[in-house]
Amino acid sequence: MKDELLRGIASPDDVKKLPPEQLCELCSEIRDCLITTVSQNGGHLASSLGAVELTVALHRSFSSPTDAILFDVGHQSYTHKLLTGRYDCFSTLRQENGLSGFMRPDESQHDPFITGHSSNSISAAYGIYKAKALRGEPGTAVAVIGDGAMTGGMAYEALNNAGSEKSKFIVVLNDNKMSISRNVGAMAKYLNRIRSRVGYHSFKNWLNRFLNKVPLFGKPLRDRLFSSKTMLKNAIYHSNIFEGLGFNYFGPVDGHDIKAMENLFSIAKNQNRPALIHVVTVKGKGYPFAESQPNLYHGVSAFDVQSGTSGHSDEDYSSVVGQTLCQMAESDGTVCAITAAMTSGTGLTEFASTYKDRFFDVGIAEEHAVTFSAGLAKGGMKPYFVVYSSFLQRGFDQVIHDAAIGGFDVRLCIDRAGVVGEDGETHQGLFDAAYLSLIPGVTIWSPASFDELKGMLFRTLSAKGVTAVRYPRGGQGDNACFCDTGAAADWFYPGHQTLVITYGRLSGGALEAVRQNAQSSLLKLNRIHPIDDALIKEIATYERVLFFEEGIRDGGIGEQLATRLLEQNSRCAFSLYAIDRFVPCAKTKAVLSHWGLDQESVMKALEGVKP
Amino acid sequence: MKDELLRGIASPDDVKKLPPEQLCELCSEIRDCLITTVSQNGGHLASSLGAVELTVALHRSFSSPTDAILFDVGHQSYTHKLLTGRYDCFSTLRQENGLSGFMRPDESQHDPFITGHSSNSISAAYGIYKAKALRGEPGTAVAVIGDGAMTGGMAYEALNNAGSEKSKFIVVLNDNKMSISRNVGAMAKYLNRIRSRVGYHSFKNWLNRFLNKVPLFGKPLRDRLFSSKTMLKNAIYHSNIFEGLGFNYFGPVDGHDIKAMENLFSIAKNQNRPALIHVVTVKGKGYPFAESQPNLYHGVSAFDVQSGTSGHSDEDYSSVVGQTLCQMAESDGTVCAITAAMTSGTGLTEFASTYKDRFFDVGIAEEHAVTFSAGLAKGGMKPYFVVYSSFLQRGFDQVIHDAAIGGFDVRLCIDRAGVVGEDGETHQGLFDAAYLSLIPGVTIWSPASFDELKGMLFRTLSAKGVTAVRYPRGGQGDNACFCDTGAAADWFYPGHQTLVITYGRLSGGALEAVRQNAQSSLLKLNRIHPIDDALIKEIATYERVLFFEEGIRDGGIGEQLATRLLEQNSRCAFSLYAIDRFVPCAKTKAVLSHWGLDQESVMKALEGVKP
Repeated sequence: MKDELLRGIASPDDVKKLPPEQLCELCSEIRDCLITTVSQNGGHLASSLGAVELTVALHRSFSSPTDAILFDVGHQSYTHKLLTGRYDCFSTLRQENGLSGFMRPDESQHDPFITGHSSNSISAAYGIYKAKALRGEPGTAVAVIGDGAMTGGMAYEALNNAGSEKSKFIVVLNDNKMSISRNVGAMAKYLNRIRSRVGYHSFKNWLNRFLNKVPLFGKPLRDRLFSSKTMLKNAIYHSNIFEGLGFNYFGPVDGHDIKAMENLFSIAKNQNRPALIHVVTVKGKGYPFAESQPNLYHGVSAFDVQSGTSGHSDEDYSSVVGQTLCQMAESDGTVCAITAAMTSGTGLTEFASTYKDRFFDVGIAEEHAVTFSAGLAKGGMKPYFVVYSSFLQRGFDQVIHDAAIGGFDVRLCIDRAGVVGEDGETHQGLFDAAYLSLIPGVTIWSPASFDELKGMLFRTLSAKGVTAVRYPRGGQGDNACFCDTGAAADWFYPGHQTLVITYGRLSGGALEAVRQNAQSSLLKLNRIHPIDDALIKEIATYERVLFFEEGIRDGGIGEQLATRLLEQNSRCAFSLYAIDRFVPCAKTKAVLSHWGLDQESVMKALEGVKP
Repeated sequence: MKDELLRGIASPDDVKKLPPEQLCELCSEIRDCLITTVSQNGGHLASSLGAVELTVALHRSFSSPTDAILFDVGHQSYTHKLLTGRYDCFSTLRQENGLSGFMRPDESQHDPFITGHSSNSISAAYGIYKAKALRGEPGTAVAVIGDGAMTGGMAYEALNNAGSEKSKFIVVLNDNKMSISRNVGAMAKYLNRIRSRVGYHSFKNWLNRFLNKVPLFGKPLRDRLFSSKTMLKNAIYHSNIFEGLGFNYFGPVDGHDIKAMENLFSIAKNQNRPALIHVVTVKGKGYPFAESQPNLYHGVSAFDVQSGTSGHSDEDYSSVVGQTLCQMAESDGTVCAITAAMTSGTGLTEFASTYKDRFFDVGIAEEHAVTFSAGLAKGGMKPYFVVYSSFLQRGFDQVIHDAAIGGFDVRLCIDRAGVVGEDGETHQGLFDAAYLSLIPGVTIWSPASFDELKGMLFRTLSAKGVTAVRYPRGGQGDNACFCDTGAAADWFYPGHQTLVITYGRLSGGALEAVRQNAQSSLLKLNRIHPIDDALIKEIATYERVLFFEEGIRDGGIGEQLATRLLEQNSRCAFSLYAIDRFVPCAKTKAVLSHWGLDQESVMKALEGVKP
């Protein structure tokens, strides 16, 4: 791998020092490094490839960390990492104790903020900007946000706030026409229109020249056209949504032309109004496989660089959900699927093409997705909102206020529930069991296998109120043994002194541990909330209860169950094994072992050994 | 009170039948009824007064319930209730078992959805619309949303979704220039601009006439100006944010001119593109006190109609927070206050005027507010986001992802924590202790008195990570006896057999109950999360523990404590008294009594009587 220039970049200052004619070579080395590293470690490739020149131009035009630069979602931040002193350790990307796949303040002074979930960069950057202004510190703040992230309501809230007063605050819209899949919604169409429009200035110049040629009527016409009272001036200068929201709009500019971007950035920097610079990039740029199928190369597992092929595409929980929803939709014409810009990741590709009318990709908009689903339910449809656990956090109030209080039959299919592995703390699905079970009337199911998942999904067809089915990332592994019984809980080897309780992915390991220990029984919860009184009474008869939970401890299912045991005057010895901190990037297996949740840990716990 | 016409309105059909010349009289009767009822029951007056003619026009133009009409926030829905068969029971507004102050599907078939929290109406209405379309049912859906609610990101997410395809979906923007206080942000400025602009059509007509007079150059100029290739046509026809987002924009129209609105509605109904009708209203219209000070008459307690004065303006927790933050800001130049359009309700009026630079009203935008606060903290300021408990639900993911994972020192002042009384289930602050304590690293304080609140706020100046101080609506009542000790918990009459544990508002009643019962002790938690191990050990020595929690049971503080007792092998008899369902509208005192949380209930529980 060639890296002559790249290895000379210790900080953004070195990027500034490079002569313009070497930048093309630098970008080429960066792309090589990105492709090589991601092909080995997995990661977010296509977004990063598209933002190479943009990131170089930013670091030549601004001075990080004095100027805070925030890359929304962090997918786009790999080049930024390479240019801010992290080239040497870039091979540790997304490895335990290695570089994060997202921006992390504790990783570098050049990462001002956490950006793992979409659409937060403008809010955070504007906060940093205002703090600088209030403290009289030098520098500005720059939010780099994709057109996909721009569909999130939070981005609009931030524009509305930041656009309301004069400042030197800067937003860079990195428009690659994509979220993970093709970007959707009215804003995407709008950006498409303004991308293809003649620029303001060239139109204004043409009009001026033309009017100068018109005898007699030319001047009064021009005066009237451009007088501040007519709507034409408004129309020309505020005809853009971002201008409407108080930003100076610049662009569109080619996001692979460093010189052009540097020019625009230097103009934008010197305005006294917040600026939005519209940069058009090609997602996946420079790697043909990624350029032609950017959605497949958005987030990838390790792959072969030459062929572009990834080793495994085993069946996973997401694909089972997609297939099952298709089956359900075939026999029930009211079944709908909703996604927040995650068609592929949530396994809905086939549903999207087969049941076009009943498929809704609403953009990166979990708030809207939940309430829109409740509206569909009100109208007599059966909505299934399929969403990652950590992203549903964005729709928490809507689940409470719009779905649960309203009593609407909304189904939540919660993907990536539990530990997610390399994406790290911002993407762990550790909270859903807790934050959903605190909402009155919500029912939560947690399958341990594909077969259970299918059964549970079919039964939700007749479910009342808000019903969640939550399942982990990846495949079922050793859990294939669990066949769907339809019961709220399943007992294995009942009647011994010690009872292990768990649910979901941990069930296989727990079963094997219990099988090897003659004194113990296993209770596998299928419906983790609510839990029937009769079951609590049965649990209370055991001498010793060990609860293993792949989720947050405080507020989780284990605590709810423990309280009811205590209220029943149970005299059992109770231990709760769960997670009580944010969990950084590491392989799922390692995380489960670290937190005492894998088979070996259960065995040790049964033997009384502290895990 | 005159009600000749109003009492003849049994359903919207009767509104349609009225001859136009009687509508003015009808509106006058409606206003009388609104003012009389709200002056007795309290409620949301100013928004409702502003939407009288608009609501009449809607019910003449559309056919509820075939056409679903959703009033965002529900504040504006009082007239709708009067016109849909609820005049007879309107005097029960906001009373126990009476009419809700918001829209409620279980109250009437004319209330299609819950609208208590802001900005959800477009999402819900669009869901209902799509369901109708898919099922081939007649009718459309109309979301009536205020300009304040339009600052919420969720509304934008919904516009982005609904604007992306052809439909007959309708949004009515009720623009009264206000949230609760004056509306803020770039969108408010934008609406101000388009309100004062010459309408499209009149401009286009002028231009055509003018160009016809220009010899020789007139036609080519006109052709060029209006050719589809130039940006002028785009500029004129898409120069509006809502047009940009795919909506046909109509207006602005006078929201007190029923005829004009009916005309626009009938045009909008017959388009094949989603329509946004911009209606300009005067908040508080028709009641001089409300018209001149709409913010004071947004949500009111009972008041005297003649003088406009309300009986009490006692000191409450909100005002103590406002005063204390002012004191803190005076001595510490980095203290900032952030509100999501609730300056007055959260007690920040004085802070806003005294520390203009460090006060941020960000609009109805809790997501942005949390992350913007985290950005301020990153930049070295001390942000205090003051927000109602139920509205912070909107910022749940941001507290996790942007504040807590980032480890930023963000302070949350959580108003209306616990039971709120007449606003009912959508506004109860029952969940914050649960949904915040499940987030690793969050510290939560719960004062029982003003003095404790002040002390806790001052100590948050040096707090690390996310720190919440939560306090109830209203005054301190009998709790004034609790002086700030600075401790994480306070003991009263320790060492007896039975231990009562509680926190916050319940403390006064619990203390009195314990005082009257010689066998019991009281532990008042001040820091409700985290709780030290030493305290758990001490609690575990009691024979009987009764935990009283003004909050949701599952996931709450009581369950967390119970689990740790069980893990300590405590042999205590434990009972948890908390809330496990949504709590409808009723006086706070009645709710606390119903749920077994008041002094009398504690006394009964101590005596072993089932509450």
